[in-house]
Amino acid sequence: MIIDRLFEDVEKEGHVCLGLDTDISYIPGDFLKKYDNLEDAIFEFNREIIDATLDAVSCYKVQIAYYEAYGIPGMVAYKKTMQYIRNKGKIVIADIKRGDISNTAKMYAKAHFEGDFESDFITLSPYMGLDSIDPYLDYVKNKEKGLFLLVRTSNEGAKDIQYITDENGEKIYEVVGDKLNKLGEEYLGKCGYSSIGGVVGCTHRDESVKLRKVLDKMFFLIPGYGAQGGTAEDVALSLKDGNGGVVNSSRGILLAYKKKENGEKNFAECAREEAIRMREDIRNAIKLH
Amino acid sequence: MIIDRLFEDVEKEGHVCLGLDTDISYIPGDFLKKYDNLEDAIFEFNREIIDATLDAVSCYKVQIAYYEAYGIPGMVAYKKTMQYIRNKGKIVIADIKRGDISNTAKMYAKAHFEGDFESDFITLSPYMGLDSIDPYLDYVKNKEKGLFLLVRTSNEGAKDIQYITDENGEKIYEVVGDKLNKLGEEYLGKCGYSSIGGVVGCTHRDESVKLRKVLDKMFFLIPGYGAQGGTAEDVALSLKDGNGGVVNSSRGILLAYKKKENGEKNFAECAREEAIRMREDIRNAIKLH
Repeated sequence: MIIDRLFEDVEKEGHVCLGLDTDISYIPGDFLKKYDNLEDAIFEFNREIIDATLDAVSCYKVQIAYYEAYGIPGMVAYKKTMQYIRNKGKIVIADIKRGDISNTAKMYAKAHFEGDFESDFITLSPYMGLDSIDPYLDYVKNKEKGLFLLVRTSNEGAKDIQYITDENGEKIYEVVGDKLNKLGEEYLGKCGYSSIGGVVGCTHRDESVKLRKVLDKMFFLIPGYGAQGGTAEDVALSLKDGNGGVVNSSRGILLAYKKKENGEKNFAECAREEAIRMREDIRNAIKLH
Repeated sequence: MIIDRLFEDVEKEGHVCLGLDTDISYIPGDFLKKYDNLEDAIFEFNREIIDATLDAVSCYKVQIAYYEAYGIPGMVAYKKTMQYIRNKGKIVIADIKRGDISNTAKMYAKAHFEGDFESDFITLSPYMGLDSIDPYLDYVKNKEKGLFLLVRTSNEGAKDIQYITDENGEKIYEVVGDKLNKLGEEYLGKCGYSSIGGVVGCTHRDESVKLRKVLDKMFFLIPGYGAQGGTAEDVALSLKDGNGGVVNSSRGILLAYKKKENGEKNFAECAREEAIRMREDIRNAIKLH
């Protein structure tokens, strides 16, 4: 089970999941000038960041929207980035938030678990229901792949659907979480967690504590740290015995160089320093809880 | 407003939305052999189908999963297909069902409303909430673009989230529909419908009648006809005064040739005949209601 690999990588390298949401505007001017096409510029920027952070993060998350936005050259950069991370022996989460059914979902599974865009984990949206997850399960069971389903996101608009209370007094995100936690029991790793994980934001402290208890088999992909207001303490409450989740940071790490004098020249080193700072920030918060 | 163009195309060409979910296995063997690479084979198949159906359908829907599944060559075929349809003056719906927030949603908007993959309408999933729609609204208001949000889909698993009853006795899909119908009022075309439409399956007849009344500003993208059990009569109940929706058919049209003797040689003509049959089937059902 892929979740055991992720669990072990968290034990060794900490909880940071580095988000490669690489907008062209993030790339320092001098670096950008070295390349005469977009796909090389984006990929080479990512490569520098990846090389500098291999032992500072447990995994990478690549947000496909940033690559789709640049059309075919963007998708080539995406492909190269995914392959580079996997060739380095690191786990990569494709943040695609797809959500569709039957044959279409099968095609998405093929797209993101095989071939040009192969990843280790993908994110999915559950709105269409559990049958929208079925086509991925063979990969989870037999091909060392994993899923992170949206459960409770960290944005303001989460209230519009996720926070609706049903006739039994449960919130939609709780109902969804329960169903997925149960489904996940069929795909448990030795570490005790399932290869069917959940995206659970860390910005609501009381709920994090509750969700961590109720969704006992679910490994969390945690957005919301830093820019969105989540602290290391919030993160610690979403973890259990120092594991059970990875915490995404994208701009906080990719743009760390902007806060340093002459940072542009050492953008990758600045990313490394920020990743390590974040890792230790989380480790310290865990010790206190 | 783009919705006025779609409304007029429905008046002229009927309700069929031809779904170009082109799996490589759909392409007749002799045709496939003519091409030495995947991107040409897929695109040329689509081109034959499009050329044969320009006056038989109101619009096309391209399911991006089928193209992602073939990696970079697939995405090139996708790009060429989108551009070909738009160059022919027809409306194309990118069936991408994306759903993300803030900067990521901005990137998806840029990806699918500009550049290589430009479309006229995109489908979106609302699970993350209304703020996941905001980044697209500038395109809707100022750039002749439109949206179809998932409201009630036609799959079995729709019960898992969409059919949950909230504390006020409303189903989630009704709550979502109401919110989107209200949001849509700010983007009304002269035809009376909004450029923010909804995906509403036609497989539950009573609900279709109710939804058509309640979601009075919402233009419907209707899946479920044919393969999934929806009939022309079901479709008619989702329409109003003979307009207000387009009805998707993919395999039913693309694979019509398999039901004809020597169909492989005339696959595009078979698609045309099936599209016209479906158009008339729906028009007749509308006359009876």
